Amino acid sequence: MKKIKTQTLKGFRDFLPEEARLRQTIIQKIKENFSLFGFEPLETPALEYEETLLGKYGEEADKLIYLFKDRGGRKVGLRYDQTVPLARVIAQYQNLSKPFKRYQIQPVWRAENPQKGRFREFIQCDIDIVGESSFLADVEIITCALTTAKNLGLTKVKMAINDRQNFKNFKKEVVIALDKLEKIGEEGVIKELEKKGFPLDEAKKLLQKIKKISPSYILEKIFSCLKDYGFKENEDFYFLPTLARGLDYYTGPIFELILPDYQGGSLGGGGRYDNLIELFTGKAEPAVGFSFGFDRLVEVIKETKKLTFSSSAKVLIAVFSSSFISTSLKITALLRKNNIKSEIYLNPEKKLDKQLKYADKKGIPYVVIIGPDEIKTNKFKLKDMKKKEQKEVDLENLIKILSLKEKKNDCQSQ
Amino acid sequence: MKKIKTQTLKGFRDFLPEEARLRQTIIQKIKENFSLFGFEPLETPALEYEETLLGKYGEEADKLIYLFKDRGGRKVGLRYDQTVPLARVIAQYQNLSKPFKRYQIQPVWRAENPQKGRFREFIQCDIDIVGESSFLADVEIITCALTTAKNLGLTKVKMAINDRQNFKNFKKEVVIALDKLEKIGEEGVIKELEKKGFPLDEAKKLLQKIKKISPSYILEKIFSCLKDYGFKENEDFYFLPTLARGLDYYTGPIFELILPDYQGGSLGGGGRYDNLIELFTGKAEPAVGFSFGFDRLVEVIKETKKLTFSSSAKVLIAVFSSSFISTSLKITALLRKNNIKSEIYLNPEKKLDKQLKYADKKGIPYVVIIGPDEIKTNKFKLKDMKKKEQKEVDLENLIKILSLKEKKNDCQSQ
Repeated sequence: MKKIKTQTLKGFRDFLPEEARLRQTIIQKIKENFSLFGFEPLETPALEYEETLLGKYGEEADKLIYLFKDRGGRKVGLRYDQTVPLARVIAQYQNLSKPFKRYQIQPVWRAENPQKGRFREFIQCDIDIVGESSFLADVEIITCALTTAKNLGLTKVKMAINDRQNFKNFKKEVVIALDKLEKIGEEGVIKELEKKGFPLDEAKKLLQKIKKISPSYILEKIFSCLKDYGFKENEDFYFLPTLARGLDYYTGPIFELILPDYQGGSLGGGGRYDNLIELFTGKAEPAVGFSFGFDRLVEVIKETKKLTFSSSAKVLIAVFSSSFISTSLKITALLRKNNIKSEIYLNPEKKLDKQLKYADKKGIPYVVIIGPDEIKTNKFKLKDMKKKEQKEVDLENLIKILSLKEKKNDCQSQ
Repeated sequence: MKKIKTQTLKGFRDFLPEEARLRQTIIQKIKENFSLFGFEPLETPALEYEETLLGKYGEEADKLIYLFKDRGGRKVGLRYDQTVPLARVIAQYQNLSKPFKRYQIQPVWRAENPQKGRFREFIQCDIDIVGESSFLADVEIITCALTTAKNLGLTKVKMAINDRQNFKNFKKEVVIALDKLEKIGEEGVIKELEKKGFPLDEAKKLLQKIKKISPSYILEKIFSCLKDYGFKENEDFYFLPTLARGLDYYTGPIFELILPDYQGGSLGGGGRYDNLIELFTGKAEPAVGFSFGFDRLVEVIKETKKLTFSSSAKVLIAVFSSSFISTSLKITALLRKNNIKSEIYLNPEKKLDKQLKYADKKGIPYVVIIGPDEIKTNKFKLKDMKKKEQKEVDLENLIKILSLKEKKNDCQSQ
């Protein structure tokens, strides 16, 4: 028989149950937080016309878009981010109520060179407000991003904030060099500037000058609102005059979510981009947004272990032998009606120790054993797999014990 | 300026907030039900090697797979269903604990001719059990699918059940013709059979013979278990000897979820397929599964209106003028801390009636108004947008009123 390829495509990932459960629990938490702020979901197709995608991200990025011709000969491409599809939606549906507050959590595809922590398919979690130029929209985006991260257990996160307007008199090369500050340090930035033709002295002075810039008028207003909202300056947010953000299209306040002591980079970023949507609509349309780097979020949440995740099932109902199937099924149905995640062992021919091993391997904390004695007395053996002990309980107590949540922070959306 | 394409690609759909909220709420409910049965999530990439996809679905289907070469020259294709990626995963990760019970809810892509109700991107909701040949696995799949549909408010759904083994002595053409019974009626099936070369008399007799077949031994066992579990024969499930299911790969019990009086076809289907995974693994691997047609589920749930869906935000906090921003922000933060979905109006320069109109358009049921009087008395005006009435409340009562759920069935996962 011909051997069929059984490999995941290079640069792509499968998420097996344990990892997938964690990811989906985090996504659900993020959605709940976004909804709490009145952001509503938007879904756009994976495929867009090539023309919609090209020329929005810059030359380098255009090379990374998955482009192909479909069976009808249409030139199409896979979603590269969620901002361009948003801009298309805004142009296409004229009667959306503004300001349009949407969240979008979908995969995007980039034909990057695969390397550690960089993949060709990954999830973005975006919030954007379109159609509102007031600084209150920026405040809303920042408070939502901060609250979401803190509610995910990342209590130490801070938002670094700057204003792109501060750079309006600087050359583009300065912003590009400055954007690398976190990675290459001040000396690195100065070297970058020298490469771009700035004399050493001038490069040093330039950096010193930028570091001494004070918050703009609009940033002062934003900071004041963040304090009204309950956030503390320095502890929850701070002014960072050297913050640059790589993307071309920012026009005003920009922000980056930082977790101190985490070396993997920012957990997300965003800012105001008042000119991008105009490319699609032909008229000015102010906008501000934030995007979480989902993979990094998952990584740091795993490290902090602030969220705990229940195993898929709370209990396994063992099946003693074929003649006990009926009772085992009834108990299983009853437990599930009581909202207890339950598995019934699916093969009555297998010995009990094999059934217990299955529970152990899957991390199912309890096993219910129903045998001839149990049916006579109407009591069941409940085995605690961690404590390695078992006790006899009646039906009422069985439900009671299994209904108890194990941990306070139990993140049960899966 | 060059005009940029602002259209959704043909055969694809955008889901704007109202629709997207409904869809995501249903998906979350489905996940919760799947988890209740101990199914765990699996995610696979959108792209697979061409070789993984081709030759599994039949010649006609192969033509509908989106295939292309990526930038590295690899021949790749977009996910066409979730069963083949599952088979690849089973072959690739040898130490998954068996039986492997997974659910998978991701989009699939098919280059079909777009027509009413048929799209090129749609979501599949699958449950499968791999590695267990016992009929208890079939029971588990059927009970999970039935329970999920009923918990979605579709209390009248029934599972039609048959056994592919009943057809093992019939020609393949008979199964193909029979599969169309629901669409074209008995006369249509007889005509189909005539076209395939069966004499009219023989075709009629064949159909009568099939209609008289009794449940197989394995179906009797499954029915008995379904009754033990609490389902009623005829009301919740029934034997349908003419049920055929189109797909080639079924080897045993097959099932289809029917909503009586709904003309749009079955809400999903599945069955046992004990030979498919062997194509990847080279060794026998029994499997049984079920797949919900998500678009149809959404359609019938909308029609039954059994699930109600809250608007994105419960309350809009109006901003009376710039000098009241601070108080409005504090109230907003407090309401959100109390888990009340709240929006703050983002432009303090806009008049109050414009702010009320925004709430109206978005279906936000309450508006809080904080003006000079309110700040003095520490009471707030709470406007009920449906009843068109307002009352003065203090902070404590404000939180109390807004915390009340509106309806019993409120599906709040968004």
